[in-house]
Amino acid sequence: MGVIFLHEIVGTAVLLLLGGGVVANNILTKTKGFGGGWLMISFGWGLAVFSGVYVAYKTGAHLNPAVTLGLLVNGSDLYPGDAAAGLPAIPATFGNVIAYIVAQMIGAFLGAVLCWLSYKKHFDAETDEGKILGVFSTGPEIRSYGWNFVTEVIATFILVFIIILFGGTPSGLGPLAVALLVVVIGASLGGPTGYAINPARDLGPRIAHALLPIPHKGGSDWSYAWVPIAGPAVGGILAGLAAKAFI
Amino acid sequence: MGVIFLHEIVGTAVLLLLGGGVVANNILTKTKGFGGGWLMISFGWGLAVFSGVYVAYKTGAHLNPAVTLGLLVNGSDLYPGDAAAGLPAIPATFGNVIAYIVAQMIGAFLGAVLCWLSYKKHFDAETDEGKILGVFSTGPEIRSYGWNFVTEVIATFILVFIIILFGGTPSGLGPLAVALLVVVIGASLGGPTGYAINPARDLGPRIAHALLPIPHKGGSDWSYAWVPIAGPAVGGILAGLAAKAFI
Amino acid sequence: MGVIFLHEIVGTAVLLLLGGGVVANNILTKTKGFGGGWLMISFGWGLAVFSGVYVAYKTGAHLNPAVTLGLLVNGSDLYPGDAAAGLPAIPATFGNVIAYIVAQMIGAFLGAVLCWLSYKKHFDAETDEGKILGVFSTGPEIRSYGWNFVTEVIATFILVFIIILFGGTPSGLGPLAVALLVVVIGASLGGPTGYAINPARDLGPRIAHALLPIPHKGGSDWSYAWVPIAGPAVGGILAGLAAKAFI
Amino acid sequence: MGVIFLHEIVGTAVLLLLGGGVVANNILTKTKGFGGGWLMISFGWGLAVFSGVYVAYKTGAHLNPAVTLGLLVNGSDLYPGDAAAGLPAIPATFGNVIAYIVAQMIGAFLGAVLCWLSYKKHFDAETDEGKILGVFSTGPEIRSYGWNFVTEVIATFILVFIIILFGGTPSGLGPLAVALLVVVIGASLGGPTGYAINPARDLGPRIAHALLPIPHKGGSDWSYAWVPIAGPAVGGILAGLAAKAFI
Repeated sequence: MGVIFLHEIVGTAVLLLLGGGVVANNILTKTKGFGGGWLMISFGWGLAVFSGVYVAYKTGAHLNPAVTLGLLVNGSDLYPGDAAAGLPAIPATFGNVIAYIVAQMIGAFLGAVLCWLSYKKHFDAETDEGKILGVFSTGPEIRSYGWNFVTEVIATFILVFIIILFGGTPSGLGPLAVALLVVVIGASLGGPTGYAINPARDLGPRIAHALLPIPHKGGSDWSYAWVPIAGPAVGGILAGLAAKAFI
Repeated sequence: MGVIFLHEIVGTAVLLLLGGGVVANNILTKTKGFGGGWLMISFGWGLAVFSGVYVAYKTGAHLNPAVTLGLLVNGSDLYPGDAAAGLPAIPATFGNVIAYIVAQMIGAFLGAVLCWLSYKKHFDAETDEGKILGVFSTGPEIRSYGWNFVTEVIATFILVFIIILFGGTPSGLGPLAVALLVVVIGASLGGPTGYAINPARDLGPRIAHALLPIPHKGGSDWSYAWVPIAGPAVGGILAGLAAKAFI
Repeated sequence: MGVIFLHEIVGTAVLLLLGGGVVANNILTKTKGFGGGWLMISFGWGLAVFSGVYVAYKTGAHLNPAVTLGLLVNGSDLYPGDAAAGLPAIPATFGNVIAYIVAQMIGAFLGAVLCWLSYKKHFDAETDEGKILGVFSTGPEIRSYGWNFVTEVIATFILVFIIILFGGTPSGLGPLAVALLVVVIGASLGGPTGYAINPARDLGPRIAHALLPIPHKGGSDWSYAWVPIAGPAVGGILAGLAAKAFI
Repeated sequence: MGVIFLHEIVGTAVLLLLGGGVVANNILTKTKGFGGGWLMISFGWGLAVFSGVYVAYKTGAHLNPAVTLGLLVNGSDLYPGDAAAGLPAIPATFGNVIAYIVAQMIGAFLGAVLCWLSYKKHFDAETDEGKILGVFSTGPEIRSYGWNFVTEVIATFILVFIIILFGGTPSGLGPLAVALLVVVIGASLGGPTGYAINPARDLGPRIAHALLPIPHKGGSDWSYAWVPIAGPAVGGILAGLAAKAFI
């Protein structure tokens, strides 16, 4: 269980540092990448996953409770193991599932703190509270809890469904395959809600936003916080069930 | 034949959900990716193919009647099979060809519906009927049925010709090779007509556009609908014949 | 020699169709990709090479006299052959070198014609003669034959030097490696002259520009034409010699 | 030691030629890629690494003193060798470490000179001294030596930590993996300081800037020069230690 904690914490921290960073670079005042655009954000988050997966390879690099839940209902091991590399399988016990999810939350929180440190002076100089929150957590462009929930369910379904299918279509791409999948989900389905598609990615940084001493920050929009938790959780579970039926 | 239906429907639905989504994100009002640009669209559609191919690997992932027709006239199996993965070949019988094409049409329709659900509030808020149709189907920038047809023939020829040649130049890229091919066809040949290069990709969503209750939608531009069907069909058939002669 | 002609013609035609196309999409009036930017152009040309390489794999897919000349002075075969695929080596005889270069010129000419057909109505509607020529051939932003020559020598040296080194560092990337090399050469060294880095890529389309009936075309800028021929030729030869010393 | 010198000099020169080039193309007056944006810069530097790695494969292609220092404290060989390719391991002796770092500095200087030659007329035409220096060396958007140092430490830590972990998660990507890592570090963490993440990448070109005869250049900002040396050095060393504990 120590392996799960260590790898999922560090891997998810890398994910949030780089993922939060590309948003910060795009929207905070006086950055070099200001206005870099949505394709930069899509590649940034996709390659943040790429980087996190290399870090957390001993646990299968979920980095996302929706993936963990999807594998659980799919009936798979949480990590199939790798005999050649001497890595044991990680079965889907209750304790292991909790360990993954807790570690992902801690890692996402830490990654957001590292992102804040990396952009410290730009956070200090930023006066738009919406942008400050936007580096940490997602929010909808048109607020509609029901439809925002639908968008998150669909986007997360695609993510987890195809991740599970990757097992059946091996190629030499390794972590690049999931990275490119995240690029396209961002480019294609990120428009309405900013594609949380991961409860830890949204909640961990939202807690960090609430706690960190940032000059012009506003509220942490807790009324929306359930959407990027429930939507991805439901999407991941549906994907795990659908993949079981599909294969 | 059930395998063909299931995989080509789901794979093509994923293609249209993500492909339609990147257009929606780029052009519909109030999206986060608004104005993301043509490179984002090119990568979005290319990686939409990438995602769909992973889903439909048991049928060779045509996702496109032009590919099916190209393989038919090329004299290949529709899918060569994969002994290592226990997947049988799918011969080019009349019934199988029809199954592929019908499934692709159904999948494209369903994918367009999922895209509409994902962007529901943005469709509701959009008042430009050209943009609404543009998320579903292609249309020319300079209307000229003859030259629009030529563009679609050439672009689809390149797609299907090189897909068939992929068999002769193995690399470890797997589905990434065809994805990158679609990226460049979009970037390079998508300028005049929006690169349907796939009859199902255009017709299925056009039917969805005609049926769905979208507040400010206009007509479905049926007078143009034959071009993105006939052009890709002709391009695919020519490519199948040319590839046969070339190899 | 028939194999050389067929593959280098078709491969180079694909290169110029897609490479010219991405420029057309970016700069011609009323295209969907208008103003897509230099990164789109860089990816477009890089993936145009990717596509052309798949087509011309039986000849090693030079598609570029600078590559052919570089291999010649390097003392390599023009194509090492592939025993597993039953493809014979192609030695660097005088006749073979000429066959490669002539085929590349013909292919580049044909690709430019196909590009013109794909964008026919946009060429007809375009009134800026600089843009019309820009789809076909390269030209400098600051005209200085000597320094433009230097830029082309350096950029082509990098291209051919690293292509020859690829032989020593195998990875599973196949044609993607050279494609990404062309992406970065365009992004990084294309600023002054538009990176011809290939005599055929520039001369073949320039001849096409001179011959095709395009309403508002101006002259074909023959006074500059020697730079994108001589610069890449010199760069390729220097790279072949340097690679020989380096390995 | 001759192998180290030759390969690290040439590889780092390629890195700086292409990396400096993409900045020149983006910001110098009258270039074709002017205003290409931060995503172009991120891909340009990432693929510059890709290209340099192919060149310097016989030494493991550090191209960066932070990588060399990270491997040193990690207790690894500087290059593990490749028995299949007949390449011997390079142990982390004092002499070898010095050879790597000196060669990287020389290579970075030479690459910056080549970049200047490639864009000679654009440097001559440029009147903004900040842009001229910006092609050579990094500088902060908000000057704060302490926080700029923190940003460089974090970004370099991610780079070196994951490079060392690559050894444990083999995929077929070869040099593409590190290239994509550099793309995301640029997109995500380059906003405040321009991501030197490499002492040689910054100091070598800064010396070139000081020496080259460029019409409107200003000072070389030596007061900032220690940050992109010390930050990456500390980040690399911390990463080497952390990776040792992590694995």
